[in-house]
Amino acid sequence: MSTRIPVYLDCDTGVDDAVALAYLLRSDAVDLVGIGTVSGNIDSAQAARNTLDLLELAGHPDIPVAIGAHDHVTHPYGGGAKHVHGENGIGGVELPRAAAEPDARDAVQLLIDLSHAHAGMLQVLTIGPVTNIAHALERDPSLPSRIAGVTAMGGAALAQGNITPVAEANIYNDPEAADVMLRADWDTVLVPLDITMQHTLHDGDRERLLASNDPFVRAVGEILDHYLDFYVEEFGERLSPLHDPLAAMAVAGAAGIGRPLRVPVEIDTTQGPGRGQTVVDMRGQRRGPRDHAGVRTLVLFDGEESLAEDLMATLLRGA
Amino acid sequence: MSTRIPVYLDCDTGVDDAVALAYLLRSDAVDLVGIGTVSGNIDSAQAARNTLDLLELAGHPDIPVAIGAHDHVTHPYGGGAKHVHGENGIGGVELPRAAAEPDARDAVQLLIDLSHAHAGMLQVLTIGPVTNIAHALERDPSLPSRIAGVTAMGGAALAQGNITPVAEANIYNDPEAADVMLRADWDTVLVPLDITMQHTLHDGDRERLLASNDPFVRAVGEILDHYLDFYVEEFGERLSPLHDPLAAMAVAGAAGIGRPLRVPVEIDTTQGPGRGQTVVDMRGQRRGPRDHAGVRTLVLFDGEESLAEDLMATLLRGA
Repeated sequence: MSTRIPVYLDCDTGVDDAVALAYLLRSDAVDLVGIGTVSGNIDSAQAARNTLDLLELAGHPDIPVAIGAHDHVTHPYGGGAKHVHGENGIGGVELPRAAAEPDARDAVQLLIDLSHAHAGMLQVLTIGPVTNIAHALERDPSLPSRIAGVTAMGGAALAQGNITPVAEANIYNDPEAADVMLRADWDTVLVPLDITMQHTLHDGDRERLLASNDPFVRAVGEILDHYLDFYVEEFGERLSPLHDPLAAMAVAGAAGIGRPLRVPVEIDTTQGPGRGQTVVDMRGQRRGPRDHAGVRTLVLFDGEESLAEDLMATLLRGA
Repeated sequence: MSTRIPVYLDCDTGVDDAVALAYLLRSDAVDLVGIGTVSGNIDSAQAARNTLDLLELAGHPDIPVAIGAHDHVTHPYGGGAKHVHGENGIGGVELPRAAAEPDARDAVQLLIDLSHAHAGMLQVLTIGPVTNIAHALERDPSLPSRIAGVTAMGGAALAQGNITPVAEANIYNDPEAADVMLRADWDTVLVPLDITMQHTLHDGDRERLLASNDPFVRAVGEILDHYLDFYVEEFGERLSPLHDPLAAMAVAGAAGIGRPLRVPVEIDTTQGPGRGQTVVDMRGQRRGPRDHAGVRTLVLFDGEESLAEDLMATLLRGA
């Protein structure tokens, strides 16, 4: 019997989504049982096509991919981040088109079905806006009772934002959905910019991926190219922060991941300058990390320096 | 002819206001030409009484003190922070009552009159909510043309807040006023928690003040007692962060004060969880400090480690 953690992935593939997907497929700790897509980096239909094509290359055409929400809870999809992720979401790289088509169910139904098939065990991992999660909670309010936990790439606690001065893009793109997710009766671990901007892949890592014998791993290296360019403005060199991959490593319980802190988090759903901010109450922590008992949100702040190299080792395993 | 900088001080005295006042009175660089009070740490009338009593002890009964706004721009005064500053605002210390009474003008009129008397030279220093400044801009829209600059203790950029997870108390207590101040046609330097929490007085400093021959300096030492207790919860020991004193040192151009950064700042005036936050756009600064040309707000982030000792040296000068 497998001791792997069954994971439902909700994604908007996306360059760093592709890296996270590669990690999940190569990790010994995870059994990726289904994938839903959402509009974010790219629209949900294109995200599904990118995901199917990556799965085929990776030798996993069997994993169901269901298209999720095109628009967000209270507002339409804004058109994505093509300047970051390229016109097709995966850095302009043209992957061989997989034979597989999206699942007949929508992402919400796939998640609900998987929550029954893996009741009490299923981990939900979100690496895009969490629109599907909010819809799933609405369609089946009993969902949290069958979910072991939620891990979400999103937010900025004490770090600056990336889409506004204080908001991170995944949360900003659907704050109302994030608010619903954080109020649900489950533990949510946020993986915010505070940690993801501290761990990066560099151009040499990309070259190591390109040198692989595995066409899937090589494709991930190609996909990274455009993304590395974008971050020159931010870092002054070609670096890729590990936004989505770190959330994948957190759900997999990777060795170098620190202990997340249980702290109150409120989502700003106003139309003011704080819209989409994760308002994280870090007061009283000057004397050292301190958990708030009973709080259902956790924030991951720390990870060992080796995380980027651990990610690379998993991607290159057996390749 | 004096080369001292003429300063109008707007305060809510207040323990750290008292320390800032002592610095301004003892500094060679500043000519404190008038003081207005506002409700914040304590109500504006009590703040004026505290200020008059301190001025008398300091040998400056001649400096006009005008009572300013009791309530804020869109909401009533909330009752202050007596748990931090004591029942009377100055740590429960009973000062000898000065003969001097508040100026017949209100704080707004005093500021406007001083802006004419020192046209083009007057520096405005605020160390409480900036209600009076907003009212002054309304009463005399030409005010900025006669003001050399504004320095305000307030806000939190990347630091956590102190009254909410993201808001600092001075701004939170009147965000609508702060919004008016930052949109006015003058340069405003914010001195936020990012710097003020990094510089502290400790119990040994208080004892040095208590050992002074100068009754004014001894009174400041006594006033600090209650405040040091409050911060044990935050720091684990008796420390006083230098909120208001650092703003006073900034307006005086103290040697150890760093160069403030010209960056966009927006005040959150919503009723959401971000209310009162200074939304500071620090994006794109990972490669080093970068000014935004044309922006009228500056944020002070850095100061030399010696600032607390420099403050002490000024307070103890000749005492």
